[in-house]
Amino acid sequence: MIMINGVIKDYIDVADRGFQYGDGLFETIEVRDGRPVFVDFHLERLKSGCQRLHIPFPNVEILSYELGELCRSKISANAVLKIIVTRGSGGRGYRQPDDIKPTRVLSLHPHPDYPQTYQQQGIVARFCTTRLGLNPTLAGIKHLNRLEQVLARAEWHDPAIQEGLMLDGHGYVIEGTMSNLFYVKNNNVYTASLNNSGVAGIMRNIIITLAAAQDIPVIEHQFTQQELLSADEIFVCNSIIGIWPVKQIAMLNFAAGLITKNLQTQLNKLIDREVGHEQ
Amino acid sequence: MIMINGVIKDYIDVADRGFQYGDGLFETIEVRDGRPVFVDFHLERLKSGCQRLHIPFPNVEILSYELGELCRSKISANAVLKIIVTRGSGGRGYRQPDDIKPTRVLSLHPHPDYPQTYQQQGIVARFCTTRLGLNPTLAGIKHLNRLEQVLARAEWHDPAIQEGLMLDGHGYVIEGTMSNLFYVKNNNVYTASLNNSGVAGIMRNIIITLAAAQDIPVIEHQFTQQELLSADEIFVCNSIIGIWPVKQIAMLNFAAGLITKNLQTQLNKLIDREVGHEQ
Repeated sequence: MIMINGVIKDYIDVADRGFQYGDGLFETIEVRDGRPVFVDFHLERLKSGCQRLHIPFPNVEILSYELGELCRSKISANAVLKIIVTRGSGGRGYRQPDDIKPTRVLSLHPHPDYPQTYQQQGIVARFCTTRLGLNPTLAGIKHLNRLEQVLARAEWHDPAIQEGLMLDGHGYVIEGTMSNLFYVKNNNVYTASLNNSGVAGIMRNIIITLAAAQDIPVIEHQFTQQELLSADEIFVCNSIIGIWPVKQIAMLNFAAGLITKNLQTQLNKLIDREVGHEQ
Repeated sequence: MIMINGVIKDYIDVADRGFQYGDGLFETIEVRDGRPVFVDFHLERLKSGCQRLHIPFPNVEILSYELGELCRSKISANAVLKIIVTRGSGGRGYRQPDDIKPTRVLSLHPHPDYPQTYQQQGIVARFCTTRLGLNPTLAGIKHLNRLEQVLARAEWHDPAIQEGLMLDGHGYVIEGTMSNLFYVKNNNVYTASLNNSGVAGIMRNIIITLAAAQDIPVIEHQFTQQELLSADEIFVCNSIIGIWPVKQIAMLNFAAGLITKNLQTQLNKLIDREVGHEQ
C-alpha cells in the first residue's frame, strides 16, 4: 500500500526532484503488531534532515495521521514502513523552485523476517571495496543519494554473507551498507564518528543511550579495519534488524558477547514498551 | 513531451530505483533546429556510465529512434532534451533485482535562451561554500546523485550571478554547479582533473579536442582558487550554453580573451556542421 501526498497511488511525477536529483530524504520504520516503532525519533530525524537540506517539513499531524492509516491497514502483520520526502516537482536544472511543495511518499512493505539465528548467533560480514565519499555537508543525513550503498551491495551474491562493511576515502571503517556498526573492546563500546560520511541511524542513537544508561561508555572515533578486527565483540544495527552480532568477518570469528547480549535485552524491553507489550 | 520506455506519459513507478536511491544516469542534450547536437557523444557517455554502474545499456537503435521522435515533435524550435536511465524498479533495499529492466525517460524542455551577452561579454561567477564530496568510484559519472549541486545552486539568488564554482573537500576548484571550468594562463589551457569528483562533460571533452587540434595544450591538474584568480582568461562550458567567458569572480575582472574566443569560433563551426548549417 502506497500513499503519495495523502492519495493512494503508486506513481510519481517524473519531474519530481527525488527522481531527477535524489533531492530528498527517507526513513525506514519497523511496524510491529500494527504500530510504528520509535516513530517519534524517526519523525524528528526526518525533520532535522529537512532542515539541513532546506526542504519544508511536511505537517507532522498529517504525516502522523497517514502513518496511522497505513499501519492500521495491515494490523495483524509486522511490516516495514518507508517514508520519503522530496523537494517536490521543479523545472529542469538544479535551482529549486521559489515555491517548494514537498512530496511525501508513505509505503508499507512485507517484513523481511530474517532468521532468528541472526539475532542469536550472529551474522557473517565482509569488507566492501566501494568506499563512502567524504562530504561533511551531507554526512549523517539519510538522504536519497545512495549510489555508494547500491554499488557496495552489488559486490557480493553469496547468501551466507548478510552485510558488507564500508570504509571511507581515508580508509576508516564507517558502517554497513544498511546498518551502523559498533564494537566492544575491554568493556568499552566504540562506533564510527560520522563527520565526513555515514548515516546517523535511529538505532545507533538508541544504542548509545541504552549503553550510557548502564554506565557503559560509547566512544565515537575513527578506526581502521585492523582495530575493528582486534575487538572482543562486534555488532551491526538498524531499525528493522535491531542488533545483530557479527560472528565472522574476513575469516575471523567473534563471539556474541555479554555487552552485545545485554544491549539486545535492553533494546527488546524498550521495543516491547513502545508497542505496548510491557508487563 | 515525455516518453518513458517508449510510452508518452509523465509519471514513473514510485518503486523506480532512480527515485528510491538516485540509482541512474542522465544526459542533457541541446536540440537545434530539431536536431540533437553531439548525440553520438552523449549516447557514448551514457553507455560508459551504465557500464560503470552495471546498469544494462538500453538498445541504442530504440533510444535513437525515440530521440528522433521527440526532436521531430517540435522541429521549429530549439530545445533541451534530457535522457534519464535508471536501474528500473526493484524491491525495498539496496540490493539490485536479479533481472534488471532499466527505465529510460526522454523529455523535451524549452531552451533556456540565455542572453547573447553571456557568450559575448561573459558572465559573473561566485565561489560556493558547498563542497563536492571526494569519491573516485563515482567521479566523472553524470549520475543522479546530485544533492551537492542542488545545495550549491541554492546558495545564491542574485540574478546577476550566472554560475557558482565548486571546490572539492581538499579545497581544489573542480567545476561549476552546471558546467565544467577552464582557464588560460600564458597561452596554456587548464582544467580540473576529475579523479575524485566532478562530471566529465561532453563539452569539456570537445573543447580539449578542439584545443589539441590547434596545438594548444590542455593540462588537467589540481588547482586552487588563488591559481584560478591569477588566470588570463576563464570560461565555463556545457552542452546547452556552449562556452561562456567568465568576466568576473570574487570582484576580480577577466577579459573574454583570444583563446576563449578562438575556441568559441571553432565550437560554433563544429555545431553548424552537426546541424547541417555548414557552407
